[in-house]
Amino acid sequence: MLIREATAADWPGMWTVIEPIIRAGETYTYPTDSSEEGMRSEWLPAESLEHDAGAPARAIRSYVVTEETGGNSAPMIVATAQLHPHHPGAGSHIANAAFMVHRDHEGKGYGTLLAHHVLDAARADGYTAMVFNAVVESNEGAVRLWQSLGFEILATIPGAFEHPAQGPVGLHLMYKALAT
Amino acid sequence: MLIREATAADWPGMWTVIEPIIRAGETYTYPTDSSEEGMRSEWLPAESLEHDAGAPARAIRSYVVTEETGGNSAPMIVATAQLHPHHPGAGSHIANAAFMVHRDHEGKGYGTLLAHHVLDAARADGYTAMVFNAVVESNEGAVRLWQSLGFEILATIPGAFEHPAQGPVGLHLMYKALAT
Repeated sequence: MLIREATAADWPGMWTVIEPIIRAGETYTYPTDSSEEGMRSEWLPAESLEHDAGAPARAIRSYVVTEETGGNSAPMIVATAQLHPHHPGAGSHIANAAFMVHRDHEGKGYGTLLAHHVLDAARADGYTAMVFNAVVESNEGAVRLWQSLGFEILATIPGAFEHPAQGPVGLHLMYKALAT
Repeated sequence: MLIREATAADWPGMWTVIEPIIRAGETYTYPTDSSEEGMRSEWLPAESLEHDAGAPARAIRSYVVTEETGGNSAPMIVATAQLHPHHPGAGSHIANAAFMVHRDHEGKGYGTLLAHHVLDAARADGYTAMVFNAVVESNEGAVRLWQSLGFEILATIPGAFEHPAQGPVGLHLMYKALAT
């Protein structure tokens, strides 16, 4: 297993993770009919590919988790994340991040490993805290994971997410201070 | 006084309201060096100008408050607002809005009038609630105004805003359900 920043060549593999999740519409507010190109500009924008060793802190960064598949096949992308400032300007010292694990590879710990990696990257970039502003209340696995990593629910916007099966459910604002 | 949706011709007047506020960097997270063109794409995007009588509900809408100046001068823009979905997709039934009053015309009630107008527009567009996700804690006039209009502080992200004079202050998440 390898966790690293994503490259342009990773996109097709990232899309196999992202597409079923946004089509299902149960955990993210991306429109369920989002185009591949639109999602690419959200999740792997040009800015996230322009990094080199001297990349500025608090750049938009995209990550992938790859797993060997055996034989001569290329490694498979099993999870992906994105890290960016929660707000620009005077709010840019607070990080925001988003995570997706391939539906066939849930429950194997990839989300936790990737979260630790991204939290470390956020600390290295000088962020003082991380927030998630739209954790779907019914996404209990995600809520539990974030709580186990020290995130607290600061607020819940009632009924702010139209779940396709459960109807309106809340969106949690979750927060974790990052030790510097 | 007139409150109406903005047109492309309003931009120069809107910019006279917006520019000093973002340059001061005390109440918004827009970078203080934001370009006029960048701010225009944020505050008066092409999408907000494409409305006609049949505009879809929950479109991005920009507003201006104009005041007669007497004589033959054109009306002056004294305040502006923007209304848009807080999130896309499954979160698009919750509204988000932003308001700016010209610094020379604060305290005259324009903010309150514009807020009522935009809340009514949000109800008409079918939004079920309105949230502000980054009300600067030290912006006490704004906090008081929103509370007087029925908004509550759901949460405060500690130190999430680098105030140029006061240092890190909190960002409030404020919320108001909209009766339908």
